[in-house]
Amino acid sequence: MPPSTPDDTPVAFQDPQYREAVIDLLAAIAYGEISAFERLAEDAKLAPSLEDKVAIASMASAELGHVASLRARLAELGADPFAAMAPFRRPIDKFHEHTAPADWYEGLIKAYVGDGMANDFYREIAAYLDPDTRDLIVASLEDTGHSEFVVGRVRAAIAADPRLGGRLALWGRRLMGEALTQAQRVAADRDALTALLAGGIDRPGLDLAALGRMFARITERHAERMAELGLDS
Amino acid sequence: MPPSTPDDTPVAFQDPQYREAVIDLLAAIAYGEISAFERLAEDAKLAPSLEDKVAIASMASAELGHVASLRARLAELGADPFAAMAPFRRPIDKFHEHTAPADWYEGLIKAYVGDGMANDFYREIAAYLDPDTRDLIVASLEDTGHSEFVVGRVRAAIAADPRLGGRLALWGRRLMGEALTQAQRVAADRDALTALLAGGIDRPGLDLAALGRMFARITERHAERMAELGLDS
Repeated sequence: MPPSTPDDTPVAFQDPQYREAVIDLLAAIAYGEISAFERLAEDAKLAPSLEDKVAIASMASAELGHVASLRARLAELGADPFAAMAPFRRPIDKFHEHTAPADWYEGLIKAYVGDGMANDFYREIAAYLDPDTRDLIVASLEDTGHSEFVVGRVRAAIAADPRLGGRLALWGRRLMGEALTQAQRVAADRDALTALLAGGIDRPGLDLAALGRMFARITERHAERMAELGLDS
Repeated sequence: MPPSTPDDTPVAFQDPQYREAVIDLLAAIAYGEISAFERLAEDAKLAPSLEDKVAIASMASAELGHVASLRARLAELGADPFAAMAPFRRPIDKFHEHTAPADWYEGLIKAYVGDGMANDFYREIAAYLDPDTRDLIVASLEDTGHSEFVVGRVRAAIAADPRLGGRLALWGRRLMGEALTQAQRVAADRDALTALLAGGIDRPGLDLAALGRMFARITERHAERMAELGLDS
């Protein structure tokens, strides 16, 4: 048993691979939120009014606000939080490079749909983890509370210019495609994280059929969000 | 008496010019904080490490976090918060245009020294206001809690490269000069705000000698912060 796992550690953490996977997962979420802050702060520049700018900037701040508790937990688990985030910088940065919004509305949709997709994915994984880790993840994915703002702005813009709907629907599909591409890249690189889904000492795992259902649920919720925005998915 | 001042309004607010001045002041502080968010988020890109980036991004978020209560109070006073901010966008944006940091250290110093100067100035003015407004202003200027981080980083950099100290000392003087230039522009444009300092029905005002002492205190505290950073002022 490694020195950093005292005997009152949950059984799951006595499996070094589990510990490694949890570190990976928390680090990926933390870097995702830092990176979301950066992109939203950048998108705020595209805002057509000061009020819109403040709305997007507040979403950026809310994302960053979750990082502190993830950092603290990574340190508790004996990891250097920023070193743990390093392997996720490239795939997450790539996702953002490939999905740089061309205008304010693409930015809004990315904020709402992209954030929603990532949250659904992490919540699905969290269901297979020890309760403390699960609670931390769920808390750190708390809604930034601006869905209403995004939905209102996007629906009004489409009502004013129906052609915008077609372009934004394509944009939503591209976001989903890029997210899957990068998620697959992470899965191929991070053995512990992938093994996590297969289960462990005291945790049930996912067989292929269950994994398929998980992705079906994520896709389904993506479609619901697109519909909420008044867009085909 | 305007319809939006019920009888339980503090005496001060029964003076329409006082009300106008408080709206101006809260709006200037709010826009200053929105704008600080934007600049710090931009400076975060210059960060040499992910940890440094998160530290600056957290300062940006802390600034933005104060805007909500200022907006709420502006609305209570019967103002459209974003319209009230409009007159301050140009001078504050100009300040930032003229003080765009050339590197990470200039950005750090601007965050620490610039923020400190603005806070001192608003706190000085707050002393002449009704208690509710004063408390709101003081709370919205709460330290973003990252002074220690900035001081540590800057001192270490100067220790490693003493020539940096000379350049950064000049930079500190330029920040002070630009701030005074823009403050003077605001004073020339906003009569109510200037009249505020002259006093009113139930508030003492500042004569020229008192105004001089106020600026001396602000300059003094600027020098203290520069010394804290290991820089001449």
